[in-house]
Amino acid sequence: MDFSHNDKTKALLEKLDNFIAEHIAPIENEVYDFHHKENNHGDWKSWKLHPGTEALKAKAREAGLANLFLPDAELGQGLTTLEYAPMAERMGKYLFAPEIFNCNAPDTGNMEVLYHFGNDAQKEQWLKPLLAGEIRSVFGMTEPDVASSDATNMAATIIEDGDDVVINGKKWWSTGLGHPNAAFTIFMGLSNPDNDKHSRHSMVIVPLDTPGINIKRMLDAYGDYDAPYGHGEMHFDNVRVSKDNIIMGLGKGFTIAQGRLGPGRIHHCMRAIGMAEKALELALKRGHERVAFGKPIIRLGGNLERVADARMAIEQARLLTLHAAWKIDNLGVKHAMTEISAIKVVVPNMLQSVVDMALQIHGGAGMCSDFPLARFAAGARALRLADGPDEVHKGMVSRLELKKYQ
Amino acid sequence: MDFSHNDKTKALLEKLDNFIAEHIAPIENEVYDFHHKENNHGDWKSWKLHPGTEALKAKAREAGLANLFLPDAELGQGLTTLEYAPMAERMGKYLFAPEIFNCNAPDTGNMEVLYHFGNDAQKEQWLKPLLAGEIRSVFGMTEPDVASSDATNMAATIIEDGDDVVINGKKWWSTGLGHPNAAFTIFMGLSNPDNDKHSRHSMVIVPLDTPGINIKRMLDAYGDYDAPYGHGEMHFDNVRVSKDNIIMGLGKGFTIAQGRLGPGRIHHCMRAIGMAEKALELALKRGHERVAFGKPIIRLGGNLERVADARMAIEQARLLTLHAAWKIDNLGVKHAMTEISAIKVVVPNMLQSVVDMALQIHGGAGMCSDFPLARFAAGARALRLADGPDEVHKGMVSRLELKKYQ
Amino acid sequence: MDFSHNDKTKALLEKLDNFIAEHIAPIENEVYDFHHKENNHGDWKSWKLHPGTEALKAKAREAGLANLFLPDAELGQGLTTLEYAPMAERMGKYLFAPEIFNCNAPDTGNMEVLYHFGNDAQKEQWLKPLLAGEIRSVFGMTEPDVASSDATNMAATIIEDGDDVVINGKKWWSTGLGHPNAAFTIFMGLSNPDNDKHSRHSMVIVPLDTPGINIKRMLDAYGDYDAPYGHGEMHFDNVRVSKDNIIMGLGKGFTIAQGRLGPGRIHHCMRAIGMAEKALELALKRGHERVAFGKPIIRLGGNLERVADARMAIEQARLLTLHAAWKIDNLGVKHAMTEISAIKVVVPNMLQSVVDMALQIHGGAGMCSDFPLARFAAGARALRLADGPDEVHKGMVSRLELKKYQ
Amino acid sequence: MDFSHNDKTKALLEKLDNFIAEHIAPIENEVYDFHHKENNHGDWKSWKLHPGTEALKAKAREAGLANLFLPDAELGQGLTTLEYAPMAERMGKYLFAPEIFNCNAPDTGNMEVLYHFGNDAQKEQWLKPLLAGEIRSVFGMTEPDVASSDATNMAATIIEDGDDVVINGKKWWSTGLGHPNAAFTIFMGLSNPDNDKHSRHSMVIVPLDTPGINIKRMLDAYGDYDAPYGHGEMHFDNVRVSKDNIIMGLGKGFTIAQGRLGPGRIHHCMRAIGMAEKALELALKRGHERVAFGKPIIRLGGNLERVADARMAIEQARLLTLHAAWKIDNLGVKHAMTEISAIKVVVPNMLQSVVDMALQIHGGAGMCSDFPLARFAAGARALRLADGPDEVHKGMVSRLELKKYQ
Repeated sequence: MDFSHNDKTKALLEKLDNFIAEHIAPIENEVYDFHHKENNHGDWKSWKLHPGTEALKAKAREAGLANLFLPDAELGQGLTTLEYAPMAERMGKYLFAPEIFNCNAPDTGNMEVLYHFGNDAQKEQWLKPLLAGEIRSVFGMTEPDVASSDATNMAATIIEDGDDVVINGKKWWSTGLGHPNAAFTIFMGLSNPDNDKHSRHSMVIVPLDTPGINIKRMLDAYGDYDAPYGHGEMHFDNVRVSKDNIIMGLGKGFTIAQGRLGPGRIHHCMRAIGMAEKALELALKRGHERVAFGKPIIRLGGNLERVADARMAIEQARLLTLHAAWKIDNLGVKHAMTEISAIKVVVPNMLQSVVDMALQIHGGAGMCSDFPLARFAAGARALRLADGPDEVHKGMVSRLELKKYQ
Repeated sequence: MDFSHNDKTKALLEKLDNFIAEHIAPIENEVYDFHHKENNHGDWKSWKLHPGTEALKAKAREAGLANLFLPDAELGQGLTTLEYAPMAERMGKYLFAPEIFNCNAPDTGNMEVLYHFGNDAQKEQWLKPLLAGEIRSVFGMTEPDVASSDATNMAATIIEDGDDVVINGKKWWSTGLGHPNAAFTIFMGLSNPDNDKHSRHSMVIVPLDTPGINIKRMLDAYGDYDAPYGHGEMHFDNVRVSKDNIIMGLGKGFTIAQGRLGPGRIHHCMRAIGMAEKALELALKRGHERVAFGKPIIRLGGNLERVADARMAIEQARLLTLHAAWKIDNLGVKHAMTEISAIKVVVPNMLQSVVDMALQIHGGAGMCSDFPLARFAAGARALRLADGPDEVHKGMVSRLELKKYQ
Repeated sequence: MDFSHNDKTKALLEKLDNFIAEHIAPIENEVYDFHHKENNHGDWKSWKLHPGTEALKAKAREAGLANLFLPDAELGQGLTTLEYAPMAERMGKYLFAPEIFNCNAPDTGNMEVLYHFGNDAQKEQWLKPLLAGEIRSVFGMTEPDVASSDATNMAATIIEDGDDVVINGKKWWSTGLGHPNAAFTIFMGLSNPDNDKHSRHSMVIVPLDTPGINIKRMLDAYGDYDAPYGHGEMHFDNVRVSKDNIIMGLGKGFTIAQGRLGPGRIHHCMRAIGMAEKALELALKRGHERVAFGKPIIRLGGNLERVADARMAIEQARLLTLHAAWKIDNLGVKHAMTEISAIKVVVPNMLQSVVDMALQIHGGAGMCSDFPLARFAAGARALRLADGPDEVHKGMVSRLELKKYQ
Repeated sequence: MDFSHNDKTKALLEKLDNFIAEHIAPIENEVYDFHHKENNHGDWKSWKLHPGTEALKAKAREAGLANLFLPDAELGQGLTTLEYAPMAERMGKYLFAPEIFNCNAPDTGNMEVLYHFGNDAQKEQWLKPLLAGEIRSVFGMTEPDVASSDATNMAATIIEDGDDVVINGKKWWSTGLGHPNAAFTIFMGLSNPDNDKHSRHSMVIVPLDTPGINIKRMLDAYGDYDAPYGHGEMHFDNVRVSKDNIIMGLGKGFTIAQGRLGPGRIHHCMRAIGMAEKALELALKRGHERVAFGKPIIRLGGNLERVADARMAIEQARLLTLHAAWKIDNLGVKHAMTEISAIKVVVPNMLQSVVDMALQIHGGAGMCSDFPLARFAAGARALRLADGPDEVHKGMVSRLELKKYQ
């Protein structure tokens, strides 16, 4: 295991750090305020991006900082999962940064799916504009009417009909559905109910303007709509698309999903680690400035012990994630199942607890949008459910432990 | 210690339960939806109450269920703190219920202040319409520019000027400031800087339409504005009111505050216990209905252990709170300092953890407004800061322990 | 619920406190040293009591302080479970105190069994000398070869043979088996394998000098043998006793066990709460005396927060236990199942954590026999397993929760 | 950072694994029984080693497996801290294994001190026989009469007197003092009280048979004497040794201590990680074999989640420790202060919690010497105090965090 940065990574990281320091950090609060004040209610059709967004995206692209996540030297920068990891951490500190570098979820996952499993026509039509940052995309997996922690519960249907497939069902928590540029969803549904449990589902590309799609609402998470991205509920009523839109073939849904999730979890977790670093930094700064009972708050009672707890938890979570990334790169996703599930549990829980500490140090200010802490907290809480709840991932880890002694 | 209910309490409790079952529970989701959808953004000037509110308030009043919190047989129902406690728990399960019974914070605390410390004119002018549910009120204590965990940091000024006092400074987290009926604030500020630390501050009644008051904004908590109540930031710029509006006299701020906080903490904590019961109930129901991996979710992995943990934590928190209420009633607030601080730490932390468990059982649904869980979570989080953060109350408890052996 | 002390209890409690202050506290360390140094190795046959024991027992008996646990006005002091609870707490602070007041486990449980379920001859032969403090007794339930957390696993057999029963099998963790005065065991075993699950087992009185009993060894707990009481392993090889020794009748084992466990758990838990109070007291004293980095240790870092956590946890655990005692007395064991299981989980875990804190404050000194902390820690740890592990009791609590919504 | 094993390490590790499998694992229980039954009481003068010890030590030495800890190619195997780390983990699984490989604490630390800071005569006289496994040694630092968490409290004195130094004071928790082969102690005491705080203390080599040394007793930890090693209390009454026995020079105590502690903490922590792996392994095996309520215990309730928690905690702790080792090797102890303090907190706490879980799975059996779990628990508990309590190390971590923003 070698987690150190090679020269290419170091150079890119320095460039990224400089870009963030110059272009992202200075407008942090302005962008949050814009997104929050202009957009923060359920009326998603009127959501808009901060006006500087497109110019900033172009600047990042010019600087060679777009699509860093993609392990392709032509389309991205050819970084391994481990090499990209520290960049995702940097981006995680600013909620709008991933979009600037075209490294946003769920677009990243969708681009990976299309890159690895899409055919040439699909790549041309959908991957290309995604990589160019011209459109955005969503992913339709979780459903409101079943316990989606068990992915095999998925009940929305994809039925062959001549040259088409016909899609029915409901999806929710489709992140990014409220974005002005959202153009299509990858839809996962039940196509082959008689196959074995992990070959029953398929993934299909569905443009969001296809007749029969009804975007019911954006869902709030802890009262916040996460504008201008949003998490949407969409209903499909006899939605018809060509079979050409099926990715890989019918029944391949779980095969694709498994490939999609490995690097995606590294990205999620590294961004979460970035949030934790930011939260700790904010706690230290605020704790220094504010005085109570004759001392800077950070020096009162158990606060410094909590700072140490946060540092120790962050370091462990980062090493665990880098180790998982290394295993994905060197041994493949299938040999990193314990690690991938472990970070999915450890990192969001760590973030939840570090942010809770930072928020407590901030007092009331931490609760409101004057700081990004409450949004980090909501993000951490959501991440303990998204892509499989804690319990499902612990189940994976313990199953693999049991196997050692059976 | 006798925590059992006497016949009067039992009869009133039964009446309250019936009223809730008949009039509150059936409209729960409708009211939440109304408040959330109509009101949920920062544009507080357009906030409105659910249209059925006034009729329901009248019905509760007719049924003899108004002002249960007030320990006065004429103006309320003459309940002790201990007798009122289970009623507050019942109300806590529905976020809008306390208003229906005219038992809302911060009005309850303000009414207690006026009842115990106000003069006859103040009672006539402000207590009477508050008790009648005709107006609402706020409390201005916490300030944005100082660490308010140390209340002696309070820097807003109240300066004598002839027959008036002149008020300057900023207050925030003034709950209820966005309510359409909000009419006045009790303002706490520095009036006698040369006195000893706990005799420097005063409380003054300030009508919200007094010139010089600028309501800057409502603050969101975890992205939610808690409409139609809201938590506001208000700036005072040479606001002038008559000395008649001073409560008790200059320098009496902390004396009043101490009297105000005892029963108020019981109320807060019992409502929080009601939220925890509701969260556990929702977890059990949802966990039963939803099936994953061939079993109701509630029966998977460690879920039932978590249910037991929740039940054990709730029972302990309730007994602790009832014990504190009993001590307030029988020995007085000054002899219940450990208990009052203890519940202020224990109950919100218990609620935070029970709600977190219930939310996890709900999956994504628990994050959004389809259930009250995220609002309970935000409430729990806020309550760990409001009226003194955990750390300050732990400091009180440990100081009293130290005294035993010094 | 009324947890307050009536005059009788108050008077008795005062007498008990005085007795402890005068006769027990002054010899605390001397007795611990004697037990530890003289006895602390596996050679239990040479174990002896501190030489002052019998005189002290006689003095306590004269003072009317013997058998306080027994709810019989003639044989004990006629105390309810709730009235006895604070006395058990007092005794818990000194590991050898319960013996002085003839209130030791497992004798107390055995005396309750004989009192409630024994016939006249059994009472005459065994209950009388136990109440007189002339002999001691053990209880044989847990077995080395099965998972005893599921009591129906119990595999040792009790077979009818003419006027006798013949007993075979192994029992371990029989507390008090090493005591010089141990005279008999109550043995629980499988007698009616074809009955339904809870009517298969019986309890039989077996004198320890019956042929075929082989006391294999005393078991250490965390390396300590708990001399001169001990926890023993005994093997039964065709041990024959008269049917007259069967308690209540064959198949009645679980009926008796259920009756035995309710008050017994209150006793265990109240003694544990006494240990926690003692641990906290020791932490405060030691933390005051010792200075590091220029301050008394207790004032460093998060130590005072931990003191508050301990106080809050102890208060909650005590109220929960008193409430369970009140329910046992007023509604009966069957209506207090949640409460009895809840305290069995909450109290030992609370004790484990309070003692861990106190030990940390003591530094190395806390690890060794200079203080009773390590023994409290081992006791807490054992109590999380004895009489059903945490998990089994959480199972009971959650099962009863589930029933509410099914 | 590169944590992977090079070929040399791999080969040595394989040899070590084979040796353990062939010679250590098979006699594990026999040795524990011998040490426990023959030795387990305070009469340390009669303690003896398991009779096979010397032969096994010789065999390990022949196999090139002695002194692996020493980073010297001639005297040890020339392993870096990182290379030795996995070997220490292996040894940690068997409480007597480190002695077999001459890699025992505190000898390892003492050998490092002599190796790095001793003069030639000291090396010849003391390092040589230690490396040869002919004698053993202890370290005298902690004192019974002061809070030793603040090392500058150390009050025992080292006074120059002609060609000698004269030593007075008390030391305790001197591990290994009860060992039959214990020959000398490194004694740390106050020699230059007028120097600055970290230049006041010195280290002196004192043969244990020097007149004036009184070994008062072995201390039990949780009732266990850890025979045949022991933790002793020794009093020094005008003990006189030649100035030649001073290491490095007067006032150099803390300089030496700092150098000694870095690699030593890696060793301690890696052995603790080995114990955690062993505890988890035992839990999985026992949890499989034992059946309750119709299922293997490991599959009941939250047990599998706890297995996952253990695995995730172990992995994180190991990565953190390897990272610290890497920093020590590559950047030096002074640049690894956060990491060295962090592992000192994280690893023992992790071990305490993993062992607690494993013990719970074992039921009563886990409490007694039939399994090494209770000894691991005592070891974990002790390690949270030894070499600085948790709180001191958290203080170091948070101080370094604070510096980042000051």
